[in-house]
Amino acid sequence: MTIADRWLLPDGMDEVLPPQASRMEELRRALLDLYHCWGYDQVMPPPVEFLDSLLTGTGTDLDLQTFKLTDQLTGRMMGASADVTPQVARMDAHSLKRQGPVRLCYCTNVLRAKADQHQGGRSPVQVGAELFGHAGLEADSEIIHLALASLKASGAGEIHLALGHIGISRSLVEAAALNDEQEGALFEALALKSPTQLAQLVEANVSDPALADMLLALGELHGGADILSQARERFAGAPASVTAALDQLDALYEGVLARFDVSLYFDLAELRGYQYHTGMMFAAYVPGYGHALAKGGRYDDTGRAFGRARPATGFSMDLKQLASLALAAESRGSIWAPAQQDESLNAAIVALREQGERVIQALPGQRTGPAEHDCDRRLELIDGRWQPTALTHETSAS
Amino acid sequence: MTIADRWLLPDGMDEVLPPQASRMEELRRALLDLYHCWGYDQVMPPPVEFLDSLLTGTGTDLDLQTFKLTDQLTGRMMGASADVTPQVARMDAHSLKRQGPVRLCYCTNVLRAKADQHQGGRSPVQVGAELFGHAGLEADSEIIHLALASLKASGAGEIHLALGHIGISRSLVEAAALNDEQEGALFEALALKSPTQLAQLVEANVSDPALADMLLALGELHGGADILSQARERFAGAPASVTAALDQLDALYEGVLARFDVSLYFDLAELRGYQYHTGMMFAAYVPGYGHALAKGGRYDDTGRAFGRARPATGFSMDLKQLASLALAAESRGSIWAPAQQDESLNAAIVALREQGERVIQALPGQRTGPAEHDCDRRLELIDGRWQPTALTHETSAS
Repeated sequence: MTIADRWLLPDGMDEVLPPQASRMEELRRALLDLYHCWGYDQVMPPPVEFLDSLLTGTGTDLDLQTFKLTDQLTGRMMGASADVTPQVARMDAHSLKRQGPVRLCYCTNVLRAKADQHQGGRSPVQVGAELFGHAGLEADSEIIHLALASLKASGAGEIHLALGHIGISRSLVEAAALNDEQEGALFEALALKSPTQLAQLVEANVSDPALADMLLALGELHGGADILSQARERFAGAPASVTAALDQLDALYEGVLARFDVSLYFDLAELRGYQYHTGMMFAAYVPGYGHALAKGGRYDDTGRAFGRARPATGFSMDLKQLASLALAAESRGSIWAPAQQDESLNAAIVALREQGERVIQALPGQRTGPAEHDCDRRLELIDGRWQPTALTHETSAS
Repeated sequence: MTIADRWLLPDGMDEVLPPQASRMEELRRALLDLYHCWGYDQVMPPPVEFLDSLLTGTGTDLDLQTFKLTDQLTGRMMGASADVTPQVARMDAHSLKRQGPVRLCYCTNVLRAKADQHQGGRSPVQVGAELFGHAGLEADSEIIHLALASLKASGAGEIHLALGHIGISRSLVEAAALNDEQEGALFEALALKSPTQLAQLVEANVSDPALADMLLALGELHGGADILSQARERFAGAPASVTAALDQLDALYEGVLARFDVSLYFDLAELRGYQYHTGMMFAAYVPGYGHALAKGGRYDDTGRAFGRARPATGFSMDLKQLASLALAAESRGSIWAPAQQDESLNAAIVALREQGERVIQALPGQRTGPAEHDCDRRLELIDGRWQPTALTHETSAS
C-alpha cells in the first residue's frame, strides 16, 4: 500500500482543518446560544443505541442509512445514530418525563451509511431544536421562526421557505386505499417530482376519477400564495383532514410573513422524512445552494412506543453545510513570544492569555517565525518590562 | 418487548440530559478558548476511517477498542475513531504539511468497543492538544502545563501529576532481548502493578542478574522527588538511553514545579498507550477520582507511515469526566412571556433575546408556568411598554 492510499478517507467521511474547524466552532456557539435565548435546553443523545430502540417507528429510510454494529458485551445489534430527531423525542418521552411544553436543542455528529443525494457527506454535524408537548400552530410557528433565525445567524441573506403538509398526501392516499408498497411508490414519484411516473401509478392503482385527479394535483401544486386557493378548488371533494391541513398552511403563511422577511412558497409534494412526520413540513433554501439548509416539521407521537405519546415539532440542519455560508470572522492577530525560559517573560505570557490574547511561544531552534504563525505583534523587553510591540514586515522574518 | 426494554441503552453509551449537557458545552468552550490562547488551532478528525489508516502503527490495544464497520460503497472495512491522537498526528503529517512546530487541538466524540476499566464509558468526548515538529523538552513542558491549566479551568483544586518515561522500560526490555510476547506480558504486569507476576516473568525470561534486578526495580520506583536518585543508583549499569530518560525527567520535574502548584511524583511503570508512545509520559489525578483525568506523552514518528516522521507530544482528557468536576455556573434566570401574539410583545422578546436574555414564551393552554421553567422575571405591559418584572413566589404559580 502506498502512502497516498493509506490516507485515503472513505467517501463523505471528512476531516476538517483550520480555519474551517474554528469557523464551525463559532457557528456552533452562535446557534446554541440562540437556542438558549429562546428557552431551549441542550441535550446530547447517545451516539450508538440498540437497533430496536433506534429504529422503532422511524421507517425504512432511516434503517438503510444506519451503520450497524455488534455489541461485544451483549451480542445484540446496535446502530450508530443517523438522525438525532427521533432520539431526542425518546429522551423527552422517556428520560425527561417533564409536564407541559419541553424545548430541547442539540449539536452532534451523526453517521450515515450512504451519502444522501441532497446532503453530500456521510458524517454531518446535526444541529437543531425540537418543541414537545404542544399540538398547536404556535409551536410550529416558533420552530419555523427559530429555523429562519438560525440561517440568519449563519450568515444567510435571502432565504426561500417551502411549506407543505404531510396530512394532505396522506389523507388522499388513505382515501384511495393504497397499500404500503403503492404508497411508497407514489410518495417516491412525488418526491422526485416526476409527473409521468406519478400519472402511471395513479392510473394503475386509483379507480375513482376524482381521487385520481387530486393525487395528480399534488405533483402540480407548488408555487406562491395563490397555490393555496388553487388547492382549495382542486381538493374541494377531499376528506375534511385535507381542508384542515390547508387551513393550517394558511395560518402559518400569515404568521411567518408577519414576522420574518422571507420569500415563501408552497410545495404540497414536500415529503422528506414522511415516514415519521405527521403535520406541516418545511424546507429553507438559500440562493446558490441546490439543497435545503434547514428542514423540519411536525412528528407527533414518536415517543408512543417509549411510553408517552407527545406532540412534537422541530427542525435540523448540517453544521458543516452552514459553516460554508458563514462569513469569516475578522481574526485578531497573535503575539509572538521568544523561546527563552524566564520568570518575567512567563508571567507576561500568562497575563496576556488571561486577557484572551493568543500568545505563541517560540521553541528553541524553531525555523519558522512570527509571520508563518499569523502574529502581528511580538513580546519584547522594553525598559525592563515585557510588552507586545507591532511587528513590522522587516522583522517578521527573523 | 416492554417499553423499559426498548429504551435500555447499551452499557457505556450514555445520553446527556440538561443541565449536564450545557455544563459540558461551557467546559468545551473554556478549554478550546484556552487552547486558542496558547496558539493551538482546532481540527476535527474524521469520525470513521478505513481500518488500514486508522490502525497503522497504533498497536493492538487500539485495534481491540475499535468498532469495525463495512463500507457499503467500497466493501472495505472501516473503523470508528477510538482515539483521536494518532488521527491528529496523521493530519499534521499528511494533510497540513506545515513547516516548523504545529499546535493542534480538538474536542470530539469517540467510540470504544469495550469499556476501559479506568474510563467507564464507551462514548467519551475526547478533548486535547498536540504539539508537532519539536523534539525538545520545551514542547513536553508546554504540553504538561497546558494539561494542568486545562484541569484548573475545569474546576480542579489539588492536582497530582505522575511522570514517567517509556524509554526506561523499553531500553531495559531491549537489553534483555525479550520477544514481543514476553514484552507484552512484562508491560502488562507493570501496568497492573503486580510484583509477583513481574517476578515470575523476570525469573523465567531474563538470565542476566543485573538486568533482572533493573526490570524488577521498574515496579518499585514510584514516589516523590527521591525516586530519581534511587533510579540513578539502581540503573547505574543500564544502557545510556536510560540515563538520558532520567535526565529528561529531572528537567521536566524542575520546569513544572517552577511554574505550577502541583503535587508531583514519579511512576517509572506508567505505561498507558506504550504501544505508540516514545518518550516522557504523564497522568494527572484529582483527589476523589480513582483514574487519571488527563493523560499524555511523547509519541514521535506516528506520521512516518503517512509520509512524514515528526516529533509529537500531547495529551487528552474525557470531557464527560471533566464536566463532573466543573462547578455549576451561576445560572441567570429566564424571562416568562405571555402566549399572546402581539406586535409589540414580539418586538420586546426579540430585543431581550438580542441582549442575551433567555425568554420563554408560553404556548396557548399551557399548564406549566414560569416557576417550572426556571424563570425569575415575567414580561408585563406597564404604561404601554413590555417590561420584565421580578416574579414573586405568589405569582409564580399562575
